[in-house]
Amino acid sequence: MSAPFSFRLLSTDAAARHGEIVTPHGAVQTPAFMPVGTQATVKGITVDELRRTGADIVLGNTYHLMLRPGAERIAALGGLHKFMNWDGPILTDSGGFQVMSLSELRKINDQGVIFRSHIDGEMVQLSPERAIDIQSLLGADIAKQLDECIKLPNPRVEIERAMRLSLGWAERCKRAFEAVPAGRALFGIVQGGDDLALRAESARALTGIGFHGYAIGGLAVGEPQHAMLKVVEETAPQLPADRPRYLMGVGTPDDLIEAVKRGIDMFDCVLPTRNGRHGAVFSRFGVINLVNARHRDDPRPIDEASAHEPTRTYSRAYLSHLVRVNELLGQMLLSAINLAYYQNLMAGMREAIVQRRFDQFCAATREGWSRGDIPQL
Amino acid sequence: MSAPFSFRLLSTDAAARHGEIVTPHGAVQTPAFMPVGTQATVKGITVDELRRTGADIVLGNTYHLMLRPGAERIAALGGLHKFMNWDGPILTDSGGFQVMSLSELRKINDQGVIFRSHIDGEMVQLSPERAIDIQSLLGADIAKQLDECIKLPNPRVEIERAMRLSLGWAERCKRAFEAVPAGRALFGIVQGGDDLALRAESARALTGIGFHGYAIGGLAVGEPQHAMLKVVEETAPQLPADRPRYLMGVGTPDDLIEAVKRGIDMFDCVLPTRNGRHGAVFSRFGVINLVNARHRDDPRPIDEASAHEPTRTYSRAYLSHLVRVNELLGQMLLSAINLAYYQNLMAGMREAIVQRRFDQFCAATREGWSRGDIPQL
Repeated sequence: MSAPFSFRLLSTDAAARHGEIVTPHGAVQTPAFMPVGTQATVKGITVDELRRTGADIVLGNTYHLMLRPGAERIAALGGLHKFMNWDGPILTDSGGFQVMSLSELRKINDQGVIFRSHIDGEMVQLSPERAIDIQSLLGADIAKQLDECIKLPNPRVEIERAMRLSLGWAERCKRAFEAVPAGRALFGIVQGGDDLALRAESARALTGIGFHGYAIGGLAVGEPQHAMLKVVEETAPQLPADRPRYLMGVGTPDDLIEAVKRGIDMFDCVLPTRNGRHGAVFSRFGVINLVNARHRDDPRPIDEASAHEPTRTYSRAYLSHLVRVNELLGQMLLSAINLAYYQNLMAGMREAIVQRRFDQFCAATREGWSRGDIPQL
Repeated sequence: MSAPFSFRLLSTDAAARHGEIVTPHGAVQTPAFMPVGTQATVKGITVDELRRTGADIVLGNTYHLMLRPGAERIAALGGLHKFMNWDGPILTDSGGFQVMSLSELRKINDQGVIFRSHIDGEMVQLSPERAIDIQSLLGADIAKQLDECIKLPNPRVEIERAMRLSLGWAERCKRAFEAVPAGRALFGIVQGGDDLALRAESARALTGIGFHGYAIGGLAVGEPQHAMLKVVEETAPQLPADRPRYLMGVGTPDDLIEAVKRGIDMFDCVLPTRNGRHGAVFSRFGVINLVNARHRDDPRPIDEASAHEPTRTYSRAYLSHLVRVNELLGQMLLSAINLAYYQNLMAGMREAIVQRRFDQFCAATREGWSRGDIPQL
């Protein structure tokens, strides 16, 4: 449980990769999906249930945690792992994305960003050095550089400015990271919007600085899927093959398949939990909307073949009832059911890569989705 | 798992009683606290977690379930046990209390009550026969007669009218219950407000009709604790000693102790889950308000001596954080922690009755509450 960070590539099938990340808090099988534990909890899920979904790593949000309860407070309490009772690996983002999307009155310059907290209106400063400091205080196994993430579409000059700013911050984060306890990892973040030349420049410069892994940021910010995949397809091969590649904030099950096919190893996304809280279920049969009246009398589970107990135990009728009457248990069970499906999908991809039948796996999975839900009783 | 309903008195200490109820779905140790599963779920608690709190019986609400998802629907799906995945005993109320407290436009006469659903405004009829039918469809191990529960204070003439109406309905429920599968139980409900003579008349008449157990209803409806306890103290001895006595909708931990002392065997109340969802914790140290700033940096659990894992595992700092940021997990954990405390309190009372040191147990428990929370770090 105290091995330093490492990454081993174990199998490939065309561009798709299966590997293993080792961290001070244990190993992560890739391609990996990381549930989002925004405020030191994956919404509606106990850590025991999280384990049962198959998760082996969790993401924490620097922005949220620095505001509440505060990084120094968590550090004094023994770090984020102990705080939230999760003894597996934790990756933290640097706060950049939430600063851009949640806070007001941002002032960005080389030094960092000053923003108004969305909670109490207090002015807060975040610099590359402070972002690393916070993540170190949290005890993240994998930290990320501070970056500026901008929406798409945006003018090239603006995308370029943000990319170069992020590169400068990357260097400073790398330096600041020297003070962090050994064994932990720091990931750089490729920016450049939908401009492939800027992406290439960003990837090259970051590789020159040298990181334990490389994230592709600034996607899933409003662009269509094909535009996102184009950037992934062009950018992934420009990153070192012996380091993990992480596509931030992505995505739907189809996004995951398409991105793994293009050489991505790690993902995070709030979709499975957020959609679960609203009654939408990801499954082998595609998306099932439990609000639909057809489920009200259906005694069958979401998927009787699932290894995840709630997925194969509770009837659609019961889950549909819980959603309709807005019971907490519905949000809890459907969040877990969706996360279990995501983990099952990742496990399926890993196995398919080992067996060099990734394309067949994708085709079969997609066929299941397009066949649609099991027929009504 | 298919024994017919029975009740055995095992020990007494003065008026306090310890016994065992057997139902078709298993046994219940009394005095018992029954968590409230209003809409086919105890709010924020999985059935596995519910077991871990020590619960051996759950309450379901006829009023809520008849409206959504509907008794016939639950019956078609195999009954409430299967629907909510709870294989232990279930007691249902008859809907009377919620009709009075939640719905509008009630028209009450001998035939029953017609009310407007608080959900969709539809007019719904509930008669004594229909109340039994619904509870039979749900598959309740213990059903209750339909009664009219009125608020206190109320004029004597009004209390008397409601009590006599409830008596008439009790007889009709008893007759209707003959069609219910054997082995299940029906409880009568003593009414009469705070008028001891009316209570006595109600108890006598119900005993004459004959039920498997007797509930005391119409309390915890706005009267002070001493008024409630006065009614309990006078009424309990007038009920058959060989049948369980159930004080409906009560109460705080102190209410439970005082009522057990007066011969009550069963309780239900939403307090532990409702207060938990709002950050108030019941404990050996009295009520702990996690919103209070003193907990923000406290690494200690709610109660390190608890047998309930979340109670002795999660720090007050973490729970306090979850409450402050309004995370689902806070509601989930604190609901479970409160239910576990209630069950622990009941277990303590049962043990004390067996050992004939109930008064000492109450004194020690009360001393713990009055000593207050553990000192700040």
